[in-house]
Amino acid sequence: MSRLDPSLIRHLAIFQSLDDDALRAILAEASPRRVPKGTAMFEHGAEAHEFFLVLDGRLKVVKITPDGEQVLIRFVIPGEVCGMAVAIGKNTYPATALAATESLALAWPSAQWPKLCEKAPALAANAMQAFGQRLQEAHSRIAELSTEEVQRRVAHALLRLAGQAGTKVENGVLIDFPVTRQDLAEMTGTTLHTVSRIMSVWEASGLIEGGRQRLLLCDPHKLLVAAEGRASGD
Amino acid sequence: MSRLDPSLIRHLAIFQSLDDDALRAILAEASPRRVPKGTAMFEHGAEAHEFFLVLDGRLKVVKITPDGEQVLIRFVIPGEVCGMAVAIGKNTYPATALAATESLALAWPSAQWPKLCEKAPALAANAMQAFGQRLQEAHSRIAELSTEEVQRRVAHALLRLAGQAGTKVENGVLIDFPVTRQDLAEMTGTTLHTVSRIMSVWEASGLIEGGRQRLLLCDPHKLLVAAEGRASGD
Repeated sequence: MSRLDPSLIRHLAIFQSLDDDALRAILAEASPRRVPKGTAMFEHGAEAHEFFLVLDGRLKVVKITPDGEQVLIRFVIPGEVCGMAVAIGKNTYPATALAATESLALAWPSAQWPKLCEKAPALAANAMQAFGQRLQEAHSRIAELSTEEVQRRVAHALLRLAGQAGTKVENGVLIDFPVTRQDLAEMTGTTLHTVSRIMSVWEASGLIEGGRQRLLLCDPHKLLVAAEGRASGD
Repeated sequence: MSRLDPSLIRHLAIFQSLDDDALRAILAEASPRRVPKGTAMFEHGAEAHEFFLVLDGRLKVVKITPDGEQVLIRFVIPGEVCGMAVAIGKNTYPATALAATESLALAWPSAQWPKLCEKAPALAANAMQAFGQRLQEAHSRIAELSTEEVQRRVAHALLRLAGQAGTKVENGVLIDFPVTRQDLAEMTGTTLHTVSRIMSVWEASGLIEGGRQRLLLCDPHKLLVAAEGRASGD
């Protein structure tokens, strides 16, 4: 009998079409996990004993290159699974997940994955859709890194973040968790210096408003237009 | 009753653990498709009426950017599925698949995907593993594009191709389908000119042997070492 209530996960897209019995069966094997800001939920290369569903907070998935450079693969938002090494036939985590802000997740033993999929066949289909969306996103980033100037890449990274995790507010779209300029540099294959220069120009022209814990896109459409232009390209 | 025999697909990794009855059920809805060299099996933006399993040949999956630049996402080799828009919840193809050499595929109506997964639950799990591997590969390319000099990116693209689709032969690893220098440029975010310069150096030093229809990596280890060096970086 699970101590966790279906209301914890019922609203999440990945569990759509599952009834409460299926949700209870899924939760029976789960344990909650608090991840303090700045700490790792799992680390690249470690044995993938568990997989996770994020309930609250934000995590950064990063890869460290052989040369020690950090690349930011994506942010994980509530409702998303991560650390799914088992689902893709791997025994170790292919990346590191760091809490960008204090986060709460559910953890399942990796060995439970096939059983969970049997109990709730929609889970596998939903997980596959999530993988597919990430794959499309990754291909878009490959195309951007391959063909776009840095200014456009930064704009596209901001617009993608806004689309995934932004909230519409009166004066724009709010990304209400810490996205640093270093994060943006690691997402777009450029330097902190270059991102800072670009963001300063956009701040001065009222396209964005920065802050330590939040980022406001005041006019996403103008940001896209500005990015498509090549005036201050690099 | 299917006219296609299970022996057509029994050996493929994606169907491992399926018995002949399951394979027959899967084949019952399939139709064979010949794709002449240079033609498209499906096109970006078109309605995704079908998904495909490649039986023979090689296809290039490409994206065209809004500026009209072509980016090569990956090569599809026999045993791989593609055009799986339906599995990731999309109605249109997110990319174009072009036959790099004459290819043979099986096509299924997209609407059959959920039914096929019911008939053969291992199919969904195997497809998910395939997606996961592509995702890992895409993340590696993002890291390479973000942090590596062009010479290393070209070497990594060649080594990845060799790992996916190469054959060990007496004098190295053979990639026995046409991979043009333009393809390599589109895979690594650089120009034809730069790829040609790099490949000429490697040919002159005996690391690779080129040809119109084939590419031989004479010494993959030395190629990696050469790529890790920065002597002729760009």
